[in-house]
Amino acid sequence: MKCTFVDVAPESDFSIQNLPYGIYSTADAAEPHVGVAIGSHVLDMGALARLGLFGGIAGLDAERVFGQPQLNEFMSLGRPVWRAVRLALQSFLSDGENATRRQVGSVGAVAVPLSAARMHLPASIGDYTDFYASREHATNVGTMFRGKDNALMPNWTHLPVGYHGRASSIVVSGTALRRPSGQRRPDPARPPVFGPSARLDYELEAAFFVGPGNALGTPLSVEQAEERIFGMVLMNDWSARDIQAWEYVPLGPFLGKNFGTTISPWVVTMDALEPFRAPQPAQDPEPLPYLRTPPSAPAHGGYDISLSVDIKPSGRDEFFPLTRSNLKHMYWSLRQQLAHHAINGCNMRPGDLCGTGTISGPTDESFGSMLELSWSGQKDVPLGDSGVTRKFIEDNDVVRITGSCQGDGFRVGFGECIGQVLPALDLGL
Amino acid sequence: MKCTFVDVAPESDFSIQNLPYGIYSTADAAEPHVGVAIGSHVLDMGALARLGLFGGIAGLDAERVFGQPQLNEFMSLGRPVWRAVRLALQSFLSDGENATRRQVGSVGAVAVPLSAARMHLPASIGDYTDFYASREHATNVGTMFRGKDNALMPNWTHLPVGYHGRASSIVVSGTALRRPSGQRRPDPARPPVFGPSARLDYELEAAFFVGPGNALGTPLSVEQAEERIFGMVLMNDWSARDIQAWEYVPLGPFLGKNFGTTISPWVVTMDALEPFRAPQPAQDPEPLPYLRTPPSAPAHGGYDISLSVDIKPSGRDEFFPLTRSNLKHMYWSLRQQLAHHAINGCNMRPGDLCGTGTISGPTDESFGSMLELSWSGQKDVPLGDSGVTRKFIEDNDVVRITGSCQGDGFRVGFGECIGQVLPALDLGL
Repeated sequence: MKCTFVDVAPESDFSIQNLPYGIYSTADAAEPHVGVAIGSHVLDMGALARLGLFGGIAGLDAERVFGQPQLNEFMSLGRPVWRAVRLALQSFLSDGENATRRQVGSVGAVAVPLSAARMHLPASIGDYTDFYASREHATNVGTMFRGKDNALMPNWTHLPVGYHGRASSIVVSGTALRRPSGQRRPDPARPPVFGPSARLDYELEAAFFVGPGNALGTPLSVEQAEERIFGMVLMNDWSARDIQAWEYVPLGPFLGKNFGTTISPWVVTMDALEPFRAPQPAQDPEPLPYLRTPPSAPAHGGYDISLSVDIKPSGRDEFFPLTRSNLKHMYWSLRQQLAHHAINGCNMRPGDLCGTGTISGPTDESFGSMLELSWSGQKDVPLGDSGVTRKFIEDNDVVRITGSCQGDGFRVGFGECIGQVLPALDLGL
Repeated sequence: MKCTFVDVAPESDFSIQNLPYGIYSTADAAEPHVGVAIGSHVLDMGALARLGLFGGIAGLDAERVFGQPQLNEFMSLGRPVWRAVRLALQSFLSDGENATRRQVGSVGAVAVPLSAARMHLPASIGDYTDFYASREHATNVGTMFRGKDNALMPNWTHLPVGYHGRASSIVVSGTALRRPSGQRRPDPARPPVFGPSARLDYELEAAFFVGPGNALGTPLSVEQAEERIFGMVLMNDWSARDIQAWEYVPLGPFLGKNFGTTISPWVVTMDALEPFRAPQPAQDPEPLPYLRTPPSAPAHGGYDISLSVDIKPSGRDEFFPLTRSNLKHMYWSLRQQLAHHAINGCNMRPGDLCGTGTISGPTDESFGSMLELSWSGQKDVPLGDSGVTRKFIEDNDVVRITGSCQGDGFRVGFGECIGQVLPALDLGL
């Protein structure tokens, strides 16, 4: 299928096969509203709704849903509505005889260039959970924090380990974050000290938004979970390793993480990712029945999504590669994560966000954090042939995550998840 | 000061010195709205606002703020507004010459009996954090989970350990919860099994609501934290010990907790609790400067609040005592918890909830959970002289938390935090 409404370069993340949703504002329309990305443009979903493009879709009050400043209500409507909207958009964008298309005429009537759109968080995130679903990452970090013999805890191969994160400090790509200060204990023989984190890190993650929720006390099966995932974004789970290492026992990461988490603004739907399903790693031991794939669900729980992290070090104008990984390395699938989350009756709400945990793969270049690349700061990581090295992230460095699926002549991509680290505030402490 | 508008018994939790806020609805007014409890009545804050009682208060659009279905906006306004509203209410309730009082006439015009009010969550809780601030509880649990030598982790006396909890599953007192199912590993020599939790527990906690928030990247001092706490509720942090013990390493509690957390509906303000300040336990080692009490803040960070837990076991009509504790046992104060939470720049929002962690004291009767009372199920806990015993909470048991401060002839109390455990769903797994 080819977009005939606007030009879409083959290397664009935002093909007609993609159609990711986001929340944007412009100089002329300062209130955040719903958009969909195509090529280098953002289409105004509210304007399309007012033109009647979604008029025939059962269960969708399109003008209200697409007139809102977040995607939560659209997310709540479920897959039949999501698919009908996607089909209507594809028809509008590709079909010269489309009735709405004839009304619209030129692109300027319903779209602005991406460069004119200021992006906002795509949803009001009620709860944010982060999983730990890459075996390679869990093994690497466990080795450094607890030694090789205790690297992978006994529960890890039996369940998708996860923990609650902080929703308030999730920011949209492009938001600069301050280096956090806190307690650290660099010398285990001496008392802890206070100051800016000296081991600031990124974590390469993806994250999914929950669609229709479940009532408190009512679990979701793997099959139900599969149907209730709306779409995905890229995520940088910034981590202050020194704060984390000192605080995290026994109740888990807290201030080492909650100073900021960056997500990309465009939510790529699971329908757009469907052609890129891939086998997930073999699971041994076999999971308990509530985590198994039923025959009625798609066989493959993984997705072949290339993921990259690049860094623009302070004082330089260009990016250098840090990580080259792929979501297919992830041991526990998204639907297993969601089914596990709800098996005790925990209620999920539309717009809840679940991170995958750092997506490291088997090779050194696929390690998804500086902690792993520098092996806890024991070695310098060269940035290309620039002569610059890093062990952790330094002040004013910019970290960029990108990701995409390559189709035959088109791409389904996520755009950028980017953020700069500003120097710590001087607290006089 | 005596309430002359309605009768208030000396043993009532809701004296004129208290005036806790809550969200309620009635058969005649089905939309949740703001109320304040006095004696055995709920006053309609919206009605009082429309009568002009809060007309002279700078920075308060009383009709809008008290016309909302949650307290978040009122919480956001800060202590000067909170105090002015409190004074206006006290004047209205005690002063025969009050202008609004003359307009109102009888109590029925602006109030309903507590028994006619259905209570709702007092705020939309954006993020929920749980601390672990009782030394006795942390030592008891640590001993059982990790042995005596590793009971209190090295960080515990240096910082208020906390972790993120689940906001979606916080329910108001009176909401029944289902026993959760999940993975447990009762026999460490065999693989984990799936089924209903066999070690369901309560945790006696208090929790505070955050008032005005802070911007991402901008910490709060202890002094600022002191000013930004709106008020407190009682909390039962229900815990499935077998699920928790298997899952919690290394990222902390997750499904062992997030199936439900119960809070009491009436938010007792810090202004009402002010006369009941008490010294907190001596802190050795001295905390780092960002956690110390500045000379300008009130010297005592603790509060003398008697806390009780009682159980009505399945099939019985009466309650029996389980725990008798006091908030003054808590090692880390509320303001230390909040200052620590924000020291890395984590942004707090009005209506965020922070639990204290289980408030156990030094004596056996003050242990705030079945885990501690039965010492991990090793001994039966007798319920009074009923002949009934418990190691953990059984199906259809009702657990009730109460708490209050005793003044001279009056009481500042919290009402009830109550909940029943229903049998697990049969998931056929």
